[in-house]
Amino acid sequence: MTALRFALTPGEPAGIGPDLCLLISRNAQALPLIAIASRDLLEQRAAQLGLAISLIPVSPASWPDAPAEAGSLYVWDTPLRNTVRPGQLDKANAAYVLETLTRAGNGCLEGAFAGMITAPVHKGVINEAGIAFSGHTEFLAELTNTQQVVMMLATRGLRVALVTTHLPLKDVAAAITGERLMRVARILNRDLIDKFGIDRPRILVCGLNPHAGEGGHLGREEIEVIEPALEHLRSEGLDLIGPLPADTLFTPKHLEHCDAVLAMYHDQGLPVLKYKGFGAAVNVTLGLPIIRTSVDHGTALDLAATGKIDCGSLEVALETAYQMAAARTKTH
Amino acid sequence: MTALRFALTPGEPAGIGPDLCLLISRNAQALPLIAIASRDLLEQRAAQLGLAISLIPVSPASWPDAPAEAGSLYVWDTPLRNTVRPGQLDKANAAYVLETLTRAGNGCLEGAFAGMITAPVHKGVINEAGIAFSGHTEFLAELTNTQQVVMMLATRGLRVALVTTHLPLKDVAAAITGERLMRVARILNRDLIDKFGIDRPRILVCGLNPHAGEGGHLGREEIEVIEPALEHLRSEGLDLIGPLPADTLFTPKHLEHCDAVLAMYHDQGLPVLKYKGFGAAVNVTLGLPIIRTSVDHGTALDLAATGKIDCGSLEVALETAYQMAAARTKTH
Repeated sequence: MTALRFALTPGEPAGIGPDLCLLISRNAQALPLIAIASRDLLEQRAAQLGLAISLIPVSPASWPDAPAEAGSLYVWDTPLRNTVRPGQLDKANAAYVLETLTRAGNGCLEGAFAGMITAPVHKGVINEAGIAFSGHTEFLAELTNTQQVVMMLATRGLRVALVTTHLPLKDVAAAITGERLMRVARILNRDLIDKFGIDRPRILVCGLNPHAGEGGHLGREEIEVIEPALEHLRSEGLDLIGPLPADTLFTPKHLEHCDAVLAMYHDQGLPVLKYKGFGAAVNVTLGLPIIRTSVDHGTALDLAATGKIDCGSLEVALETAYQMAAARTKTH
Repeated sequence: MTALRFALTPGEPAGIGPDLCLLISRNAQALPLIAIASRDLLEQRAAQLGLAISLIPVSPASWPDAPAEAGSLYVWDTPLRNTVRPGQLDKANAAYVLETLTRAGNGCLEGAFAGMITAPVHKGVINEAGIAFSGHTEFLAELTNTQQVVMMLATRGLRVALVTTHLPLKDVAAAITGERLMRVARILNRDLIDKFGIDRPRILVCGLNPHAGEGGHLGREEIEVIEPALEHLRSEGLDLIGPLPADTLFTPKHLEHCDAVLAMYHDQGLPVLKYKGFGAAVNVTLGLPIIRTSVDHGTALDLAATGKIDCGSLEVALETAYQMAAARTKTH
């Protein structure tokens, strides 16, 4: 077996991604972690932050098998077009951002990396550079030739996956089809087994309507769409509870004995998760053939090079990727 | 000034409402509290629970001005039609349930009571009895001739009011009009002043769409409906922050300096509130000329007469009503 080593992409170079990579390198990682980034950028940002982090060059010809020591960071140097000024977006560097993602994703596919952890990118500046880009998740789905991915957010003690993600609220009800629900639930179930090492995952499923429709009085999608789909999935062996009212599902009685919650839409599931996990939530893309976790926050351009940032989300993203890779090794 | 005394309605007689009234009477209340209920029912339920609670008869001719001692409960006797068997709904007793609400509501209007606290009713059995009834809130709105009420849930440290309540999700977006949003926000603001004693309430307002529409990319209601309505309300002096994405609004940074959150719909606001406040959340009806709080749970027919219930929500409902009445006395 090759060593479990991981790729870390700092994302938008003018944002807080480079800072996060440097700040977490004050401590040693549990497993080898390689930043795919411009070495010049990291040196410059370390100087701006007054941090003494030793940058150790690595490349496909020389992958490390042991973690770097505290105070040091492995870097696979990936050149920038222009020098970066913290907080100042520069579309000339958009291709660099995508190159770091491509290197990380391909490295995962080829087995050099057991997983990748991503810091935030800035969609707007990439699009301004004339590159069609709608987000990390879609980019990696295309790179890995994946038809359907599932967005899951996790914090210690709670995982929430979404049937629909970034849709206007008015379009949500129509988007909840039996087919989509089944596709998403199967991916969630399979990845909880394969990537989280859970033998037979128990999944709580939210209704779409308030009170899960209250027997049809507050909407009929539970009766006409959700319940038949869940019944079908149960016949395939999935352990699903629901549809349950979202406002009573997120209570200890229900959450204690479940491995994940499947919410129908963004604002039904994520406010609770982010309330519970604030500063320590992680975004996990399910359905990919590779392991990918991400911080749950944005580029925070105004905080770049200030040092006034919290590494909690990146720490959980790293911890989660390490645990997933270990579980995957065991189940394969 | 008359004494601040309060009405407590146990609601559905076959549910846990009577149990709750008896269980909380083991301790003394801060202010005089009068159960509007069948005395026979309470005696019977106390025997079933093995509780020795002394029931003290009171009536409009003899209102108490001091709280009952620990182990006793004031009762305004309101006769049942049939004897109650715990857990067994009986439509013959539906009129009794409404009579207790009418007595409490009229007592509030006439000044005998400073507020009313309600335990859960069972809508289904009231409707089966041939009485049109869609809930406590609507009943009290009609009794007090109120056009628009606002549902707010509260727990220690968080209040969440809703622009729309029990609507199928597919109908929510169309129901969010500028007019409705303004009506609801004004009532919330006024009642936070009048009934909660907050000088100039600061209210956080959720967007309708994920990420509050992300500048129009995920829905245009924020730009076309919500922002203009908030701008108008600000010109009237309301202190409103938003529209904010619901998944980042419910975090300490935002919540620390606000008095209430205004959510656009049921499952956007209530999962977090019930997660935070589980077992100790209270439903407050704003917009009424009277003070009314309620437990946030149902009749739990299967738990009636078992004693295996948690009084947390009723305790917060009482505490909230007492605080509201005290604030109201101060501001008037």
